[in-house]
Amino acid sequence: MPESSASSSDLLARRASVLAPTYRLFYEEPVHVVRAAGVWMYDAQGRRYLDAYNNVPVVGHCHPYVVEALTKQAAILNTHTRYLTDGPLELAERLLATVSPELTNVTFTCTGSEANDLAIRISKAATGGTGFIVTDFAYHGTTETIAGMSPATGIPLGPDVFTIAAPVGTADAARFGALVRECLDEMRARGVKPAGLLVDTLFSSDGVLTNPAGFLAPAVEAIQAAGGLFIADEVQPGFGRTGQGMWGFQRHGVVPDLITMGKPMGNGHPVAALVARREAIQEFASRVRYFNTFGGNTVACAVALAVLDVIEEEGLLANAYVVGAYLKAGLEKLQERYAAIKEVRGAGLFIGAQMDSRETTGRVVNGMRREGVLIGSAGRNVDTLKIRPPLTFSRNDADFLLAALERVLRQSA
Amino acid sequence: MPESSASSSDLLARRASVLAPTYRLFYEEPVHVVRAAGVWMYDAQGRRYLDAYNNVPVVGHCHPYVVEALTKQAAILNTHTRYLTDGPLELAERLLATVSPELTNVTFTCTGSEANDLAIRISKAATGGTGFIVTDFAYHGTTETIAGMSPATGIPLGPDVFTIAAPVGTADAARFGALVRECLDEMRARGVKPAGLLVDTLFSSDGVLTNPAGFLAPAVEAIQAAGGLFIADEVQPGFGRTGQGMWGFQRHGVVPDLITMGKPMGNGHPVAALVARREAIQEFASRVRYFNTFGGNTVACAVALAVLDVIEEEGLLANAYVVGAYLKAGLEKLQERYAAIKEVRGAGLFIGAQMDSRETTGRVVNGMRREGVLIGSAGRNVDTLKIRPPLTFSRNDADFLLAALERVLRQSA
Repeated sequence: MPESSASSSDLLARRASVLAPTYRLFYEEPVHVVRAAGVWMYDAQGRRYLDAYNNVPVVGHCHPYVVEALTKQAAILNTHTRYLTDGPLELAERLLATVSPELTNVTFTCTGSEANDLAIRISKAATGGTGFIVTDFAYHGTTETIAGMSPATGIPLGPDVFTIAAPVGTADAARFGALVRECLDEMRARGVKPAGLLVDTLFSSDGVLTNPAGFLAPAVEAIQAAGGLFIADEVQPGFGRTGQGMWGFQRHGVVPDLITMGKPMGNGHPVAALVARREAIQEFASRVRYFNTFGGNTVACAVALAVLDVIEEEGLLANAYVVGAYLKAGLEKLQERYAAIKEVRGAGLFIGAQMDSRETTGRVVNGMRREGVLIGSAGRNVDTLKIRPPLTFSRNDADFLLAALERVLRQSA
Repeated sequence: MPESSASSSDLLARRASVLAPTYRLFYEEPVHVVRAAGVWMYDAQGRRYLDAYNNVPVVGHCHPYVVEALTKQAAILNTHTRYLTDGPLELAERLLATVSPELTNVTFTCTGSEANDLAIRISKAATGGTGFIVTDFAYHGTTETIAGMSPATGIPLGPDVFTIAAPVGTADAARFGALVRECLDEMRARGVKPAGLLVDTLFSSDGVLTNPAGFLAPAVEAIQAAGGLFIADEVQPGFGRTGQGMWGFQRHGVVPDLITMGKPMGNGHPVAALVARREAIQEFASRVRYFNTFGGNTVACAVALAVLDVIEEEGLLANAYVVGAYLKAGLEKLQERYAAIKEVRGAGLFIGAQMDSRETTGRVVNGMRREGVLIGSAGRNVDTLKIRPPLTFSRNDADFLLAALERVLRQSA
């Protein structure tokens, strides 16, 4: 049956029948997507939607250069890291060239969850500790260990996982650092040895907390002074999203002990990685021969290299910076006219617009879908519009989004 | 730099420099692979190697039908399960058609490790228990939770993980069932509530334990009678490897509560899944909205569907059965002439040849590599040759392997 002939109600019935009841769809009226190109997704009726949500297709949906690299490598060799091949080495070298020289070694995984899970194992081995600090509406992934460090999932936290309040609004760097120190004191008072501070450097799930750049520095100093590792979760902030560098932590002038990366790394192909200081991974490596079957296979590496090429050749960091600022300014103008918008935050093409309520946020997200623009929501109170398009997003695309948002705000005001 | 111009020593130096010290290569003299097709891999000097090790490229390396499906879908749409798309539904329906009707719901992940990790979370929610039983040289994956259930990795087991002796040689079904019951008694004596029995249904890492078919039944009965779930880890046995069915558990006449699958599912593309009885996953689903970014994305599903097509259209189960039996008989003939071979076990194209020592095994594995045949080793004592080729392996390929093995045995005897 050709994709487009299936009706949404057929698909919904089949989903309920054969997929696990854990699955959820976006929007009151889910979108039946059949193709995508650049920043546009198309439904079965041929209607187009501006994709202002998906960070995974970072260089645009179905980018021909990336598809070609995938196709070419898949036809030649798809094998793992227990044979000698060039791909993983070239990719590791390219990734290391984007970070401080203290960071020296790469491990490939398939998903950000696997990379974060591995970071926890490495941190425990390196420090002899078990205590981790995360922010109170963080999301870091889906394995048992990492879901237990993801308060946003609503499930009970894992053992020795401590939370601190995310710096909602404009952060006070000294205060955030003090929170980490107080948490470390509490940890030690309970007899738990510190192992690490794990943060998404754009606090994506906490509501996109970006201001001021640099506010993370005292917190990082605190965890490192306590003998713990600073793990920068770059799964959402990474690969140029902020426009100010390849990685979110770079806005904060800090050097992580471990960096995890994933989602956009293969423009949709499952590839992820962990970058480590040698001294951070040494103890773990002395105990464990970590092998990830598909992690760093020749196809995944070819795809990730192509993504890096496109980010560079198309100047996507500069685009993220310029168009992100333009879009943010446009949202701030709307804020002046619509009281429903309380605050606009963001860095590059990751913007959070905090609304007056969860209800408004839900109405706007679904209203935008009807207007043909895909966005999402974030934050502990689910009150923040999450705008995070492919980095090829243009000023015209921003204008399209802003015009749609104004129509929706006018209707729902 | 073109792949083939890099020397092995250059590559080794670059690996040591940029990859994590956790990485290990196969063979005393690692193979620098540059391309592969069908059952053959080629090194930088153009030398070919018969691949009798890699189960991941189950329908043969770089199968054109699978590459075409990948290419076509990657150019049209690569998106996730929070939009409506046909791919995950078609794949779920195809997978469910291969198992008993009690198994009704599919969850997609990217790796077998993620599927096994999810199975543990589901089992805990379903049973309210925390105790798991695994065999004493099992391997189930790389997340913190699952590495803690993989004694083969040599790291300390996780909390509430209990081991039983794997049934090396020819299993006694009643005895193996009694082992599980005794282990459950010990678990309860320590105040641990049973949650599940997790086994690779071909006991791949334990040394390829296949005889007699059916020996698992009393063990499965024991865990289910105790209120725990039986989790069939089909990551290695699955997708027709045994030649007697799509799944290893089918040789044992049992019905799992949860099935995990991975490695060969995408012929090298990262795609994996968990298949569940509805009543087993219900409680977990009431608590957790599991979402896996790349799991079940449209490209992964297109690739996995193509793999299922090829398995069916090329009659690979029948081939695995016939060629596997032929290869096993050839190995048994060699066993009559070479005392170094102690026992030949196997099902379809997964064969374990137990040798007289770890040293012989190492010599043979490296000798075969020099003869141009890739195999590996398994078992608690690393004394078993692991032979697990793509399912397109022919009688001629088997003859090639047997002739090489005889040369190696003659030299090392």
